[in-house]
Amino acid sequence: MWAMQYHYFDNAATTMISDRALDAYNSTAREYMANPSAAYLPARESRKKLEECRQNLADVLGTDPSCLYFTSGASEAITIVLTSLLWAKIPGQVITSSIEHEAVLSPLAILREKGWKTETLNAPGGFISPQELEKKITKETRLVAVMAVSNVLGTVQDTKALAEVVRSKEKEYGRSIFFFSDSVQALGKTGLCLNESTVDGASFSAHKIHGPRGVGLLYLRNRNLQVLSHAGGQESGIRGGTENLPAIAGFAEAASELSSDDYDKVRLLNETVRKELEGSKVSILTDGKRCTPYILPVALHLPSQVSVRMLQDKGYLVSAGSACSNNERGKAEAVFRNAGFSKQAGGILRISFSRYNTLEEAQGLARALKEI
Amino acid sequence: MWAMQYHYFDNAATTMISDRALDAYNSTAREYMANPSAAYLPARESRKKLEECRQNLADVLGTDPSCLYFTSGASEAITIVLTSLLWAKIPGQVITSSIEHEAVLSPLAILREKGWKTETLNAPGGFISPQELEKKITKETRLVAVMAVSNVLGTVQDTKALAEVVRSKEKEYGRSIFFFSDSVQALGKTGLCLNESTVDGASFSAHKIHGPRGVGLLYLRNRNLQVLSHAGGQESGIRGGTENLPAIAGFAEAASELSSDDYDKVRLLNETVRKELEGSKVSILTDGKRCTPYILPVALHLPSQVSVRMLQDKGYLVSAGSACSNNERGKAEAVFRNAGFSKQAGGILRISFSRYNTLEEAQGLARALKEI
Repeated sequence: MWAMQYHYFDNAATTMISDRALDAYNSTAREYMANPSAAYLPARESRKKLEECRQNLADVLGTDPSCLYFTSGASEAITIVLTSLLWAKIPGQVITSSIEHEAVLSPLAILREKGWKTETLNAPGGFISPQELEKKITKETRLVAVMAVSNVLGTVQDTKALAEVVRSKEKEYGRSIFFFSDSVQALGKTGLCLNESTVDGASFSAHKIHGPRGVGLLYLRNRNLQVLSHAGGQESGIRGGTENLPAIAGFAEAASELSSDDYDKVRLLNETVRKELEGSKVSILTDGKRCTPYILPVALHLPSQVSVRMLQDKGYLVSAGSACSNNERGKAEAVFRNAGFSKQAGGILRISFSRYNTLEEAQGLARALKEI
Repeated sequence: MWAMQYHYFDNAATTMISDRALDAYNSTAREYMANPSAAYLPARESRKKLEECRQNLADVLGTDPSCLYFTSGASEAITIVLTSLLWAKIPGQVITSSIEHEAVLSPLAILREKGWKTETLNAPGGFISPQELEKKITKETRLVAVMAVSNVLGTVQDTKALAEVVRSKEKEYGRSIFFFSDSVQALGKTGLCLNESTVDGASFSAHKIHGPRGVGLLYLRNRNLQVLSHAGGQESGIRGGTENLPAIAGFAEAASELSSDDYDKVRLLNETVRKELEGSKVSILTDGKRCTPYILPVALHLPSQVSVRMLQDKGYLVSAGSACSNNERGKAEAVFRNAGFSKQAGGILRISFSRYNTLEEAQGLARALKEI
């Protein structure tokens, strides 16, 4: 098993499924095989299990289960929200940040094709300013999308302040504006609580927190969203398709494993690497304030693709940006440039931790970084 | 485990995951944890595994791996195709059959909102006529969607003849028309071979053939389709989101288990139930010709919800239509009415077999049907 041979520091791309999450997947696949939407008794047991999982996740997220809709992942959750705008009879304006994930940026193309205007918020140092948002919101704004935590920089936005701007502009214009917060890297990696938030929608992914692939969540504060297809009508018509109950159970299990102890451990790992790199030629892009400790972006004087290989040869796996952007070169680089790191952009590595990393591994990684 | 207590005859809704498929899921989750889109060596191993699975499925489907795109299931595959029409600058016309799954019908609402015309093909007895299709295609037709096998009636369409009509009309009008065939109930249940077909697109689902939930396939003969969101750019930009490699491996494994022996066994089960019901008050809606043996629709003189419960109490699980329509009452009934079974519609049950059903179980089911 390669996971033994390598020290894995690309947990923002995907994580190892935990034993408990995989056990939950297996037992649910075997014991709750009935389609939750069927009419007989075992199907009702499947449905009960489904709603228990939803409740468990609602508890972790600090929200009501009725606000949570299971999807095949964060990308689908994001697509549901963005493409719902296509129902509008009159196109409006959409505001995103310049460091959003491609899943948010990609649907803007069809919106533009249909007459929508798009506006981008700057993100100097990886942070979006509520003041800039206030200036850019217009009477035509129908949706604002600012991710909670940058997947490449680890910067944590002041989502509360951004949401307050949106809420106040809503009052001013007498029209609702949907505030969407892609929260994939926030789950378990910040003190996220949706009930304390006034975001209208958020997306989450299981496989970033040691849960199974292929399952995520769409949070909707109100069910004020029209989808392009409800397919079989599952998930209250928000996301159709047979419910992936084994993966959902694995997700709920993985979420229940999240602990503040793990957060503290990762903070220590992060601080350790930071300290070890002090005074070296490896520069760290963020100062750690208003950042999740799970993600640490560093800049080297080598093309990032080269240093990824060199670190791999030393047994350490890190990312040159975000995993998905490997297929679409330059997307992570674009985020770095947009955040004001143009000079370093070609040589940036993303180190991302998990609770399974050890202190020795973190020290070894720092040494390896200094050596190359 | 309830599966032991009940005789499960709702395999068109979902199937029990096979031991081999679940083993493949587990070993892949553990041994190929790297994100296939990352840049280091283990990621390339994940990518290799992904492409092996695609090749295995291409072999089963009789097509080229480059035509197959992994999705989260058939519903998503269908949504990708139907909503791609929204890119058209000038709305055209879409033709569907009157017995399509809701996943095909649901996106018609947004298309209509954007000015598209929709036309429906009749399906007397569950069959769509190529002659009617020929009459209804116009110069404005951009897409024709006719499912390969009805999920509630088991009727098998003459997809080849329907595709030929589309191809000939294309020539006549000098414009391409996308012929889509939702093939969820065809995989492993008919002699499906995509290379012998001229359909432009088809959808498949793993959990209907003893594979995992949450994974499916979109087949595209040519990559002549523009999606609303490519998210992270995975699956050649057709379907974004981190690849669900464990489920994909489970799907490939389940597909490799499909055998003509199983088909013959199910045909025997189907014939057994048919024979046992001969001369009883239970009528069978189809004569078995041009039907998959995996699905057997029968009509009773009781509301179907009542007979589902009564059969459950006798230990047999069958469906009152399609599972997803339970949440949206009347959808399966609508299909029955559209197929010309208006009189029986309220009392129809769908029996659907799998290779795990035994002859004794099938005989027992027939007896139970006669008793109630």
